[in-house]
Amino acid sequence: MALQLPKGTRDFKPEEMIVRNKIVDTLREVFEIYGYAPLETPTIERFDLLSSKYTGGAEILKETFQLKDQGKRDLGLRYDLTVPMCRFIAMNPNLKMPFKRYQIGEVFRDGPVENARYRQFTQCDVDIIGCKEVTADAEFVALANMAFNRLGLDSVIKINNRKLLNDLLKYCKVPSSKADDVILTIDKLAKIGLEEVKKELKQKKISKNIIEKITKVINIQGLNEDKVAKLKKLLKKSEGLKEIEETLDYLNLLKVGVDFDVSLARGLSYYTGIVIEVILRDSKVKSSVCAGGRYDKMIGSLLGRGQYPAVGISFGLDRIYDAYIEKNKEVKKSVTQIFVIPIKTLNESLKIAEELRKNNIKVDIDLLNRGISKNLQYADSLGIPYVLFIGPNELKSKKVKLRDMKSGEEELLTVKELISLEKL
Amino acid sequence: MALQLPKGTRDFKPEEMIVRNKIVDTLREVFEIYGYAPLETPTIERFDLLSSKYTGGAEILKETFQLKDQGKRDLGLRYDLTVPMCRFIAMNPNLKMPFKRYQIGEVFRDGPVENARYRQFTQCDVDIIGCKEVTADAEFVALANMAFNRLGLDSVIKINNRKLLNDLLKYCKVPSSKADDVILTIDKLAKIGLEEVKKELKQKKISKNIIEKITKVINIQGLNEDKVAKLKKLLKKSEGLKEIEETLDYLNLLKVGVDFDVSLARGLSYYTGIVIEVILRDSKVKSSVCAGGRYDKMIGSLLGRGQYPAVGISFGLDRIYDAYIEKNKEVKKSVTQIFVIPIKTLNESLKIAEELRKNNIKVDIDLLNRGISKNLQYADSLGIPYVLFIGPNELKSKKVKLRDMKSGEEELLTVKELISLEKL
Repeated sequence: MALQLPKGTRDFKPEEMIVRNKIVDTLREVFEIYGYAPLETPTIERFDLLSSKYTGGAEILKETFQLKDQGKRDLGLRYDLTVPMCRFIAMNPNLKMPFKRYQIGEVFRDGPVENARYRQFTQCDVDIIGCKEVTADAEFVALANMAFNRLGLDSVIKINNRKLLNDLLKYCKVPSSKADDVILTIDKLAKIGLEEVKKELKQKKISKNIIEKITKVINIQGLNEDKVAKLKKLLKKSEGLKEIEETLDYLNLLKVGVDFDVSLARGLSYYTGIVIEVILRDSKVKSSVCAGGRYDKMIGSLLGRGQYPAVGISFGLDRIYDAYIEKNKEVKKSVTQIFVIPIKTLNESLKIAEELRKNNIKVDIDLLNRGISKNLQYADSLGIPYVLFIGPNELKSKKVKLRDMKSGEEELLTVKELISLEKL
Repeated sequence: MALQLPKGTRDFKPEEMIVRNKIVDTLREVFEIYGYAPLETPTIERFDLLSSKYTGGAEILKETFQLKDQGKRDLGLRYDLTVPMCRFIAMNPNLKMPFKRYQIGEVFRDGPVENARYRQFTQCDVDIIGCKEVTADAEFVALANMAFNRLGLDSVIKINNRKLLNDLLKYCKVPSSKADDVILTIDKLAKIGLEEVKKELKQKKISKNIIEKITKVINIQGLNEDKVAKLKKLLKKSEGLKEIEETLDYLNLLKVGVDFDVSLARGLSYYTGIVIEVILRDSKVKSSVCAGGRYDKMIGSLLGRGQYPAVGISFGLDRIYDAYIEKNKEVKKSVTQIFVIPIKTLNESLKIAEELRKNNIKVDIDLLNRGISKNLQYADSLGIPYVLFIGPNELKSKKVKLRDMKSGEEELLTVKELISLEKL
């Protein structure tokens, strides 16, 4: 038997998991700081839910892993965390609104595996259901801002508004039959540049006049307030523009930087208001690391009843991981802080290790009775920062010898002193 | 479309997830304190791995969810975390030994759903590979002991040794063809009692003489050291007994309580040395909440090469959860510590909320502009411990009003005082 992974899947080794856990813990912390509570739904869902026309659409459905249980029920592996959340809301009609939840979990798409696309990946979703107010829009920008600050990643948060975009297309006289198509092209501005956008619009048979108007609108420059002022002159009345203005006001108040980008659309058609996208400065990761927006109609449509205004964003763990390790080169293969090397003192060493552990110090100990140099090699290869020598001489003087693996410095300490060391 | 869950699966609501996260965080912390590093493998594996004869056996295979990818490759949902770990070891020949890893993840078994059995459940596994020394056996008992202490659950850790059990069966003259069968019955002693064990052995056509001998052996009473002493008299030479004696010595040294139980076998046949089982005192949860043992041969057999001595235990999150909520009645539907109620002060309230959040206080705020009593109801229904009133009067005096939702007590504080409150 050849031992191999399913195509498009990965193992995460300790050195990767230590970083991934750090990122996930940071996101969880920030989600909770903003009052979002954890929810968990199963990895498998009924196929009829996953294939409902209000959910992912034909593209995603084609990539849905299907399976059956012993009762021949049609099931599938979830392709996102939004559809399961909608089902949860439908099945729990007594939920208090607004319902603020986050979910971090594996999703699956049986698609092509080129360009670092994987068939199993992790989404970190945070959503508020039952709040149509623009304050919720601003909250997600503030939340994303805190998350990337705490991750130490220099980010640009871009926002726009789908209603505004629709108003602008009307202003430019884009035929409504071509609106979605034009939006898809506009959305590429940051990636392909203005000239390419023009070319693509021409290919899509948009008239020269209209292209010129579009170009002017999406190329509006200046500070956020300048852009708002210029757009106000073009549009007599735009709810979308008013929402953007209010959102910007709130973010100003909270001193959260944001970039109002008239060309931002986000591909998915279910957005109904604000759209949000976060990209990183000075990183090899060029795609968005977090994105989302308001989707006021999706849940109600899926459930076939009720009004469920909703906003949410999703953090892409894999891209954030790539950006994070780009900045934080040091790779640790172990969580261990101190590796204990007993020198003919196994019993006493085990006792001391247990004492340190009780005091929350992460301790490993040589259980194989290896020589000192082999133990030092082992600790070094795992990136463990300290080793602790416990030999008969140390024990006689009621001390232990701590070696800093980087500097090579050693110090004799009592166990009590060791426990209260600041650096541990 | 009927919105429902796949049979045998569950959602975990916020009030459940908050507790589950607390348990998982505690386990993770203890695993890391003992020097175990996180590993993550995919949820899906190749079916030929899952169905290898060295892995779970026919019973588990029957319950394995099968699926195919678009390339028609045969895949399955993992039914445990041990088999994926073995594959990982095989595919990473440069791993430093001993390899200490933990993994917390979902596993799937498409079996009957009676008796609170689920088709998706969470395993928390911690294993050491590459250590044949008995010190590793003792480490797992110490680790389990710390885990249940920190979870506040009163536990009994039972140990035995499969080699000892085999020696004892030989001593009792049990025919080797019937040894496995006899072990299965002996293992039930704690559940069904001595008389039932005798009855079952008789049904299995074990002779009266042998049953008498077995009964005497497995019913040995007394302190751990008494049992060891009595067994030493019966067996001239037993490696298993020597291992148990050493393990007990180490645990004595570490002051970790353990119960040497000669009848403990653990069903699975792959154990080769120590077996461990943890049950709870004073709990409705009667089944084991953690179990494992030494399996020195499994990995080498699966890989078809090499020596991979291994010990590991697995914590059952679902049962631990049940026991935990039995002791900790308070149910919180939210992680939020303070719910801010702006009284015509939305802008200032948003600023204060953001300030508190920057100081790691978990804060939610009314974004719907609801009245005070509706907001109090909402905070109360989610079990949020404090609300913060921010009205024009409070702002004038540069203070905010904190209400303890349990006692009803209120106090006026500056934001700075609020941030440094001990109780938050």
